[in-house]
Amino acid sequence: MEGFRARAPGKIILAGEHAVVHGSAAVAAAIDLYTHSSLHLLPASEEDGAGAVEVDLRDTGLVFSWPCARLREVFGDRAGAAVNAPRPCSSNELASMAKLLEQEDIPEDKIWLAAGLSAFLYLYTSILGCRPGKAVVKSDLPLGAGLGSSAAFSVSLSGALLAAAGAVRPQAADAGTEWGSFHKEDLELVNQWAFQGEKIIHGKPSGIDNAVSTFGSMIKFKKGEFTNLKSSNPVKMLITDTRVGRNTKALVAGVSERASRHPDAMASVISAVNSISEELSSIVELAADDEVAITAKEEKLAELMEMNQGLLQCMGVSHCAIETVLRTTLKYNLVSKLTGAGGGGCVLTLIPSLLPNSVLEKTTTEIESHGFRCFQVKVGGRGLQFCRG
Amino acid sequence: MEGFRARAPGKIILAGEHAVVHGSAAVAAAIDLYTHSSLHLLPASEEDGAGAVEVDLRDTGLVFSWPCARLREVFGDRAGAAVNAPRPCSSNELASMAKLLEQEDIPEDKIWLAAGLSAFLYLYTSILGCRPGKAVVKSDLPLGAGLGSSAAFSVSLSGALLAAAGAVRPQAADAGTEWGSFHKEDLELVNQWAFQGEKIIHGKPSGIDNAVSTFGSMIKFKKGEFTNLKSSNPVKMLITDTRVGRNTKALVAGVSERASRHPDAMASVISAVNSISEELSSIVELAADDEVAITAKEEKLAELMEMNQGLLQCMGVSHCAIETVLRTTLKYNLVSKLTGAGGGGCVLTLIPSLLPNSVLEKTTTEIESHGFRCFQVKVGGRGLQFCRG
Repeated sequence: MEGFRARAPGKIILAGEHAVVHGSAAVAAAIDLYTHSSLHLLPASEEDGAGAVEVDLRDTGLVFSWPCARLREVFGDRAGAAVNAPRPCSSNELASMAKLLEQEDIPEDKIWLAAGLSAFLYLYTSILGCRPGKAVVKSDLPLGAGLGSSAAFSVSLSGALLAAAGAVRPQAADAGTEWGSFHKEDLELVNQWAFQGEKIIHGKPSGIDNAVSTFGSMIKFKKGEFTNLKSSNPVKMLITDTRVGRNTKALVAGVSERASRHPDAMASVISAVNSISEELSSIVELAADDEVAITAKEEKLAELMEMNQGLLQCMGVSHCAIETVLRTTLKYNLVSKLTGAGGGGCVLTLIPSLLPNSVLEKTTTEIESHGFRCFQVKVGGRGLQFCRG
Repeated sequence: MEGFRARAPGKIILAGEHAVVHGSAAVAAAIDLYTHSSLHLLPASEEDGAGAVEVDLRDTGLVFSWPCARLREVFGDRAGAAVNAPRPCSSNELASMAKLLEQEDIPEDKIWLAAGLSAFLYLYTSILGCRPGKAVVKSDLPLGAGLGSSAAFSVSLSGALLAAAGAVRPQAADAGTEWGSFHKEDLELVNQWAFQGEKIIHGKPSGIDNAVSTFGSMIKFKKGEFTNLKSSNPVKMLITDTRVGRNTKALVAGVSERASRHPDAMASVISAVNSISEELSSIVELAADDEVAITAKEEKLAELMEMNQGLLQCMGVSHCAIETVLRTTLKYNLVSKLTGAGGGGCVLTLIPSLLPNSVLEKTTTEIESHGFRCFQVKVGGRGLQFCRG
């Protein structure tokens, strides 16, 4: 029984969140925390329409399963559908899936799973038709913390499904690892399907999260246009998940209201953020080939992060949990900024390459003593990867 | 024995510190923490040149005294000098005073007193000549915390000296108080003398501190020009003195260096601060005549303070002691910003008029538990005032 495994990274926003809504550039980067999707196709039993499609959401402890016959009723037999031409989920299909999922026993505190299951069903049936198979999804990423967990879900799942469908051809594994990548045009296809999944989960996603998760490295985006950046040296960051839930829509609206109350000041603030994103984009592409150059690069990054954080505070999207992390890391002379929507969520702390491990450990322990959770990550690495088995 | 008492307020910077160095507008305001100077002229004894000039610096527990004859050797007999035409202290005079003060027993940890004593001697002898007298100075203001204690010293002293010399005519006391003010032209004279004192203490003062201390209310300043603002409703603030000493020159230089490293971003930041100062200036002049209007005005002020603080953090002049205060007040939904140079020093917290006293007390207790010291002040009140006795 052949298996298809794909992993797709989460993302952070290095610069420009919120301001991007008002026309500024922003920079997103992949992190080495992954969502893994593995897929096994099952032989269709002799009776036509028998077998089931199962998804095991390992992190939640929940497994869902639908008889293929039932799926065929909802979606029709899509086998051989236009795998190479991703299309959005229609509102009829959305409604049918909602009905299908009503019959599932989703715990009340995990009701948000319904959107993810809809995306799963849509991607699965669109790419593989209603044939039996079993998917297992698990993730290193905290869910709903602004680290792109839903995009990593859609990307890794699309990657595994498209490989299983033979629509994309995985490359040989990188030396020393079991993981290989895909050709650029294959990644484009994965990205387009993943974007359809994101739309089911989020309504109106920007497309940044799935692009970073698919292509990796870093992406500058401005007014809907994406530019892939080649990040030359990996940067290490400590990500703190404050575990404070936030309302992204309300935060975005709050910034817009502030901008309408103080148009002159806020226009300058947006323009300052834009300059920071542009500067940061050019810095990450600089190759630094010795300790001095790396340290200089890190210092510039740290300064830009500190400046961006001040501007985010100016926009009113900080939170006392974020301030606690800032204050704690400042004690150790480390620079932090919120990442994503703010109002809780996650905070980035740059880890300079020359920082003694003991300081990093002390900082982490102190941050975690507040009930937060820390992750050490490398920033700007690989996007979607694949292996068999 | 006739007595002359003057009190002059300290100041805070409501908006625009640091950015003002780069061409932005800034707003300073008087606070109701005063430095009091009282002066008693003593009858010259029969022998010519007998008697002494004494200054009792009550807050330091130190008293200094110089025989009039000795002062006459240093300054010549200035009696009847041009009291109405303040002139700067010459470098010769500065050197002579330094020599005179070398003979004093100034404790090593209070060596900064020498500059204040020079200012005292210069103002006293310039305005009153070398006639015997006794001055007592005491202050509500923490020294060297950025609240304008040296300007309040120079202004209150100049006020008392000029009144004693008959060069300014105090007005009748305000109803219900013992304190009266001076006519505008008299205040101008006091301000000019106080500026000479400030120059002795600071080298190159901007003149803002003495202007606010003299004229009270609020002053907008931009590129060397001052505009007096009429503040319509007093605002209450909590001032936290973090007691963290700071190096203003290094902080100012740090901002300039950041501006040269990131010229585009920093130009936008300065421009954002300028918009905030201009907006704040127009808001403080709005009369608010009911609770709703006052609350609306306070909310606008709070938002502008929050924005300005973010921009100060962006300039890199915050400090972990400041962050501690911010984080503490944020817990109580109160907005704070650093005031003055940053890097320690003082933090302002707006106290909304409808804030329950219990919340204010709790906030204060929690701030002071970190070893900081809080003052409740009214902002934008009277400048120099005078009474006899």
